[in-house]
Amino acid sequence: MTEYLLPLEQMIEQLGSLPGVGRKTAAKYAFHLLELPQEELEQFCTTLLDGKRRIKTCRICNNLCEGEVCSICADPKRVNGQICVVEDVKTLMAMERAGSFRGEYHVLGGALSPIDGIGPDQIDVAGLMDRIKTGPQPVLEVIVATNPTVEGETTALYITRLLKDSEIRVTRLACGIPVGADLEYADEVTLMRALEGRQSLK
Amino acid sequence: MTEYLLPLEQMIEQLGSLPGVGRKTAAKYAFHLLELPQEELEQFCTTLLDGKRRIKTCRICNNLCEGEVCSICADPKRVNGQICVVEDVKTLMAMERAGSFRGEYHVLGGALSPIDGIGPDQIDVAGLMDRIKTGPQPVLEVIVATNPTVEGETTALYITRLLKDSEIRVTRLACGIPVGADLEYADEVTLMRALEGRQSLK
Repeated sequence: MTEYLLPLEQMIEQLGSLPGVGRKTAAKYAFHLLELPQEELEQFCTTLLDGKRRIKTCRICNNLCEGEVCSICADPKRVNGQICVVEDVKTLMAMERAGSFRGEYHVLGGALSPIDGIGPDQIDVAGLMDRIKTGPQPVLEVIVATNPTVEGETTALYITRLLKDSEIRVTRLACGIPVGADLEYADEVTLMRALEGRQSLK
Repeated sequence: MTEYLLPLEQMIEQLGSLPGVGRKTAAKYAFHLLELPQEELEQFCTTLLDGKRRIKTCRICNNLCEGEVCSICADPKRVNGQICVVEDVKTLMAMERAGSFRGEYHVLGGALSPIDGIGPDQIDVAGLMDRIKTGPQPVLEVIVATNPTVEGETTALYITRLLKDSEIRVTRLACGIPVGADLEYADEVTLMRALEGRQSLK
């Protein structure tokens, strides 16, 4: 391992804390930033700090926003009785990219994982229940779009159980073969789930 | 392309300016930084700015240093009449990692590239010539360790020409097959150069 000057080492260490960045990549980034003119590096840092300062979470659904409420919650056309529950904002954005969901969201900020000490109090299930009970519009369906992982499934089951005595329909995104993928390379669990969820053609 | 909130877009744009970082990776970094506690993001930025402020270039060889002169130039044991000329500090560090060179360095800060408008005045050839002419110790050999690219070769030729009337030996790193590589996959030019530079075994 190369020993760099201490201030450079510290830069590399900080840059290495970015997700998926190892020491070599961090060093590449550090050298790049070191070669920038002073004002460009200052702009770089100011933009990051400004972003952090300006971006807040929506008080209704926890989506990112600049004001009090996000653009989706502020849009009356998005009120259709459906709430899509996601683990994080990135999933919300992926759903928006897909473009076919026209209801509202609720961002939990994680998924239940007892091993990691993440229980119902660590994610925003309470906020979801609050919206369902006291929201201005009746909720007809909760679409649980947590990840198809152990944690995501656990969270989906937990939410289903909380709503089991209500009239609300609780659904889950379909698991199956990704469009364009080759069946030959699909894993067993996905194939099994795809078979279970098969759709009739006639 | 997903449209993010403006401050987030700006963060992504800045992070996307890091070498080899595309929009998707930049978004991943931005979300990570956004999720950091305020003080950790501040520490991240402070470390980058501090590094930039504290790291200077050696007034003798242009290596990175914290004071006036880098640790190599300040080390009397490194004076052996050899100067290894490199394009950038990263190459210097790679040479130091290899560990067999015991002389001094000179960092040019680039290589000649007329197409990109980089002539002899844009890289520190003048500093090198100055050291050779007026340095405290006589220089016996200049090892030109510029990259085996068109620009690097041009630079090597240029330096050779500048020194052609002096007594100084000018050498170039050997080109050939990288150790551990498979000859089958070596490109033609490398194979040709390896053949030209073949060494006698007996």
